[in-house]
Amino acid sequence: MTTSNPLQINGDRLRQSLDDLAQIGQLENGGICRLAFSTEDIQARAWVRSQMETAGMTVRIDAAGNLIGHSPGQEDLPVLATGSHIDTVPVGGKYDGCLGVLAGIEVVRTLREHHCHLRHPIEVIVFSDEERSVIGSKAMAGELSADPHLYVRLDGTPIQTCLAQVGGDWDQIHQARRSGQIAAFLELHVEQGGVLEATGTEIGIVTGVVGQYRFAVRIIGQPNHAGSTPMNDRQDALVAASYLVVAVNHLAVTTPGEQVATVGHLTVSPNATNTIPGQVDLHIDLRDISASHLQRLIGQIKLDCDRIAQATNTTITLDPFLEIRPTLADRRIMNVIAQVCQQQQLSHCELPSRAGHDAQEIGRIAPMGMIFVPSRSGISHSEQEFTSLEQCIQGTNVLLHSLIRLDA
Amino acid sequence: MTTSNPLQINGDRLRQSLDDLAQIGQLENGGICRLAFSTEDIQARAWVRSQMETAGMTVRIDAAGNLIGHSPGQEDLPVLATGSHIDTVPVGGKYDGCLGVLAGIEVVRTLREHHCHLRHPIEVIVFSDEERSVIGSKAMAGELSADPHLYVRLDGTPIQTCLAQVGGDWDQIHQARRSGQIAAFLELHVEQGGVLEATGTEIGIVTGVVGQYRFAVRIIGQPNHAGSTPMNDRQDALVAASYLVVAVNHLAVTTPGEQVATVGHLTVSPNATNTIPGQVDLHIDLRDISASHLQRLIGQIKLDCDRIAQATNTTITLDPFLEIRPTLADRRIMNVIAQVCQQQQLSHCELPSRAGHDAQEIGRIAPMGMIFVPSRSGISHSEQEFTSLEQCIQGTNVLLHSLIRLDA
Repeated sequence: MTTSNPLQINGDRLRQSLDDLAQIGQLENGGICRLAFSTEDIQARAWVRSQMETAGMTVRIDAAGNLIGHSPGQEDLPVLATGSHIDTVPVGGKYDGCLGVLAGIEVVRTLREHHCHLRHPIEVIVFSDEERSVIGSKAMAGELSADPHLYVRLDGTPIQTCLAQVGGDWDQIHQARRSGQIAAFLELHVEQGGVLEATGTEIGIVTGVVGQYRFAVRIIGQPNHAGSTPMNDRQDALVAASYLVVAVNHLAVTTPGEQVATVGHLTVSPNATNTIPGQVDLHIDLRDISASHLQRLIGQIKLDCDRIAQATNTTITLDPFLEIRPTLADRRIMNVIAQVCQQQQLSHCELPSRAGHDAQEIGRIAPMGMIFVPSRSGISHSEQEFTSLEQCIQGTNVLLHSLIRLDA
Repeated sequence: MTTSNPLQINGDRLRQSLDDLAQIGQLENGGICRLAFSTEDIQARAWVRSQMETAGMTVRIDAAGNLIGHSPGQEDLPVLATGSHIDTVPVGGKYDGCLGVLAGIEVVRTLREHHCHLRHPIEVIVFSDEERSVIGSKAMAGELSADPHLYVRLDGTPIQTCLAQVGGDWDQIHQARRSGQIAAFLELHVEQGGVLEATGTEIGIVTGVVGQYRFAVRIIGQPNHAGSTPMNDRQDALVAASYLVVAVNHLAVTTPGEQVATVGHLTVSPNATNTIPGQVDLHIDLRDISASHLQRLIGQIKLDCDRIAQATNTTITLDPFLEIRPTLADRRIMNVIAQVCQQQQLSHCELPSRAGHDAQEIGRIAPMGMIFVPSRSGISHSEQEFTSLEQCIQGTNVLLHSLIRLDA
């Protein structure tokens, strides 16, 4: 379907839907708080469901609470799927996740009102709890643990209760798996980084979603009097932790490659001004697109831990608690997106996604592609998150035409 | 007063008084909880008062709540004072503070029963709240702030109420000042460090009480996504803080001298695994016996802050919130203590006190000396605090004969 006056989505309608959804859970500072399974999330799901129905989709909810809008095609063919999430971090923005969902619905509306029928059924999916457990897309990819305790909410609510509130069912969650049923999955998302803005590029073609490894590090020293314990007689857990934070940062900064490493969480015990810290607990978050490169970096961090423990007379233990393997985008889908960008005369480049996305999980059971649009100043997970309407429209048009080409 | 069979205190009586006082506020684990102005503190004050009266002293309470036992001499002469405190930290031991008070009373009893009359009046002082506000000895030294809000208790009780409960009076607290009325102040205390034990020394002659400076450091970076923010684009407040902790430690370890520097308190914000830390608050505690050396160290720390802020693209502010000037012991009193140790054939050495004491404040208005006895494993502020009876007796005998020599 190539025309001299190609099909375009309705920008006003997309803007209105972004604004309407942003009303649900809006904070005084302009940020959005719509935690997964909260009252606001449930309210937003109902609103999105009505939008899907208005767009002519039949809507169902799978056992993982994923909200799935289905636009019919040849029902013996696997579906072309798109979508993202509508839950947020405690102070999130209006684009992260929402754009991908609302763009999917807008694409279906556009196709429908132009009587443009694709061969494959199209599905727009709102995945459950992308921001914390990624339970929705993990369940669909068959990557879920069988242990419900891993999914207990921060407030102690069991995952069974949460899923039941949104129409899911933990006991049947294996039924959410969709291996072999998805011909391709395409996710439009804001970049959540500054590469596109810095390079003045309109569309990012994601090469893959980086793998993400998290380690809980515990450093045990000896709490003691900060006044009467000589410097050479100390086992200061915070000094050891500081050497480790510096070493992890130095490794990520100086190693050739595009890895990132962060210590975002650190607590000191007893955390008293006049007591040498006896224990520090911290988390290391490490991401890269290459699984083997990640393994080399982890090996170096372990060596650093041993060296620092010896030098500071402390003990350091390192326990993995999250291991998300990298997922590469499908090269054919990337090529389709690039062709659409050329057709639409949009500048484009390839880049990895350094944030996790539902596409990372779905990419394990289906060919996956992601379309990025710029984030102002690279900011996300913040009330300052911003992508212009024009950029949202450009991304949605690329999504539309990529689905049309994939259908062919 | 030198004899071939020198006067000795009554060790059994000293042991009994240590045991009796330790009953008040004793915890199940053997520790003592006798927080200043608590029911236990008030009960202990009453018990100590009765001991003073039994020893023949007249007892009064000054406006700062200091309990002062007075053993008469030539009343036109300034007093020879000794004493310490009986309040404890939440889980303290039975020796910290108590030994100095009970040894003072034992010395007065010993002098009295041997009809040994000194020229100077002797005073045994129980200072109010050494463990937190040091309000008793500060008031006596005229070092108190006029602002009662600085002395509000952790539970919110105004200091006026606390002082009234123990017989003091905040409105008259300036009257507690005793500049010019004290000929010398001698405090016997457990070391709260491991130097005497490690060197097998029986008596420590304190050269002074270290000065203690505390700074609140605030590091402001930029919170951002731990996955999508490239390493070279970060303003990571925890990386900056870690460089600072390492720098402060390195400074204290490598600078010639006996300074100690500690970062015991550190908090990270937002403290989320997947967010680059936007803010870190930490406390630096710095101690040394030399005021000018402390100033040089502080100057170096400020330079380190500037260098690190520039290198990490963060802002670092450093605000002093505690400034206790060092107090040197009086050289003549130190010599007297050394002579007594030689006379008593006790091994002895000079060392600074790295913990704060009432003598630090009283030393600002009168010649001051401190006698240390060993602490097992250097432990204090703990139920494990221990000094043997023999060591307590040795210290009390040194206190007795030092007072006799100072009187001469």
